[in-house]
Amino acid sequence: MKTSYELNEELLQDCINIATGLFYPLEGFMSSSDYHSVVNNMILNNGEVWTIPISLDLNHDSYMKIVDLNQLQLSYKSCIIGYLEIDDCYVVDIEQDVIKIFGTNDIKHPGVSKELARNKYRVGGKVFITDDNILKNSLNPKETKAYFKRKKWETIAGFQTRNPIHKAHEHLQRVALDICDALFINPLVGWKKVGDFSEEAVINGYNTMINEYYTGLNIYFDTLKTPMRYAGPKEAIFHAIIRRNLGCTHFIIGRDHAGVGDYYGKYEAQELARKIQIEHDLGIELLLLSEPFYCKKCAQIVSEKTCNHDDKLIEKISGTKIRALLSENKRPSELFMRPEISDSIIKLKDNKFIQG
Amino acid sequence: MKTSYELNEELLQDCINIATGLFYPLEGFMSSSDYHSVVNNMILNNGEVWTIPISLDLNHDSYMKIVDLNQLQLSYKSCIIGYLEIDDCYVVDIEQDVIKIFGTNDIKHPGVSKELARNKYRVGGKVFITDDNILKNSLNPKETKAYFKRKKWETIAGFQTRNPIHKAHEHLQRVALDICDALFINPLVGWKKVGDFSEEAVINGYNTMINEYYTGLNIYFDTLKTPMRYAGPKEAIFHAIIRRNLGCTHFIIGRDHAGVGDYYGKYEAQELARKIQIEHDLGIELLLLSEPFYCKKCAQIVSEKTCNHDDKLIEKISGTKIRALLSENKRPSELFMRPEISDSIIKLKDNKFIQG
Repeated sequence: MKTSYELNEELLQDCINIATGLFYPLEGFMSSSDYHSVVNNMILNNGEVWTIPISLDLNHDSYMKIVDLNQLQLSYKSCIIGYLEIDDCYVVDIEQDVIKIFGTNDIKHPGVSKELARNKYRVGGKVFITDDNILKNSLNPKETKAYFKRKKWETIAGFQTRNPIHKAHEHLQRVALDICDALFINPLVGWKKVGDFSEEAVINGYNTMINEYYTGLNIYFDTLKTPMRYAGPKEAIFHAIIRRNLGCTHFIIGRDHAGVGDYYGKYEAQELARKIQIEHDLGIELLLLSEPFYCKKCAQIVSEKTCNHDDKLIEKISGTKIRALLSENKRPSELFMRPEISDSIIKLKDNKFIQG
Repeated sequence: MKTSYELNEELLQDCINIATGLFYPLEGFMSSSDYHSVVNNMILNNGEVWTIPISLDLNHDSYMKIVDLNQLQLSYKSCIIGYLEIDDCYVVDIEQDVIKIFGTNDIKHPGVSKELARNKYRVGGKVFITDDNILKNSLNPKETKAYFKRKKWETIAGFQTRNPIHKAHEHLQRVALDICDALFINPLVGWKKVGDFSEEAVINGYNTMINEYYTGLNIYFDTLKTPMRYAGPKEAIFHAIIRRNLGCTHFIIGRDHAGVGDYYGKYEAQELARKIQIEHDLGIELLLLSEPFYCKKCAQIVSEKTCNHDDKLIEKISGTKIRALLSENKRPSELFMRPEISDSIIKLKDNKFIQG
């Protein structure tokens, strides 16, 4: 009997994302050398940029069982879905690595606490999926690329989000649409921290936006399934690489991309993006856009690049405030969120729009 | 005594633009082979793209005097300002060439009628300026490049215009500013057709815009002195090359760039830009932006790329209508032109804001 390992939902999703090519050039879970190269230098052994380790963790007992094996069967809900051609087994120093990945080991950081809860035992190797059913309905680079080609879109800007659309995001999207042939709105719907908007809220909001405002435009909408890491700058690059793999030619990085609390500087992700782009060809152009806000004098949404009016004329668009108002069933100001979007979220019963 | 030729203001300006490097790689007036290569194939003998011929025309008597000379002194208002190292003398077929340059020989086309009024005798050769005073106060690539460098602007979008700023132009400028480090607003102030806005109107409008709205932003403002040709697509590329020479990394080409009447298709300039960019490296990225307009449903300025709402919700921004209202001392709707801009133009006495 072959040894098998029961994947949790996130490891299964990693397998799917590896198999579809979403995580290209990864062909499997990282070996020790890739893992450490990524954690320390944001680079794979093949020389390509990669910023977030993708590794299979397992508990001590499982680890001891497989440490001398060449192959590990992968199961999900007790069904074999594929196997891992074992490259190496290794033990990581999570406490030390989280500082490198997240820039902090503060357990209040949701990405850090989640990473610290993982097993330190890892196994690397190429992933083979034998049950193609698990790949169905997954975001697939072959399909998105074919769709873009069919539409004759040559330049496609990818937009990552974990929130329903507000006027700041709309501004970024309109800028991208103005300079590209098309926009791929691609919300992340994997694990998110308590207090974030739910998947339903994000999708309801976007469906409303697309029906009411974005109708008939060169917009493609689909969700991306992978957990949020809240790793800020490094996750921004990770998000860009995924969108490159999906066929995007441009990727929007705004203020505090994939950030949480005050762990990262407002434009730290853009600084890392600039630095990486000098040394490497990521294969995708990063659109580094400044924070949009409402200006009473300009009487429109502007950005730090296009408006320098006095602070007292400025109304910042706060996701936190929007969330607070919506959770009391109140519409935020129309300056910040279109009323149809607010309503589409409020109507989700029992506050289903906030991640529990 | 050396033979000298008295330049009119426009030929003097060509000499200045050649000497400063504004017309790089041109070092003088085009020889016959460059002239014909540009007219027929939009390319210089050195292989670089060039779309509008720059040639020195002279009347029959002057032509006969110089046809065997090696050098021609150049004078302006009877003062020697430099000389031409004569490359060749040639006679052009203007009637045939205007069709190639402008796509029409209709004398109602202001660029065509102006070109048809020129002498068919031409002289090509390198221009040498001996009186540096005439270069003073001219837009100079060395100075703009040094300024951009001092400001540490790495990406600069050039914006060509012959009109005071309205909301459609403002939208294009804000998009460019959002994606570049800086914006170079560079109105053309040479010869323009009767009925166009005057230089004063354009400058007044922009000074107001910069003081009231663009204050403190990464914006450089200066005028470009060269006549309008109204040659649409070919002039758009010419405008882009000049801005590349001035240090811009991007250049905005919108709807009907440098067009007049219905001679050119709405996006014909963008089509030519796309075609040229496939075959040549212009050294500047062309931002091909769609027409902005006001949408009542979106309640903001949008573009064809970002809004597909029903025509009855759309308010097009018409330069012609704006001009008509201003000439009756009426403010256009604030949806189309900011009131401060309208006022700064209306206050120009005796309708000095329309080109006589």
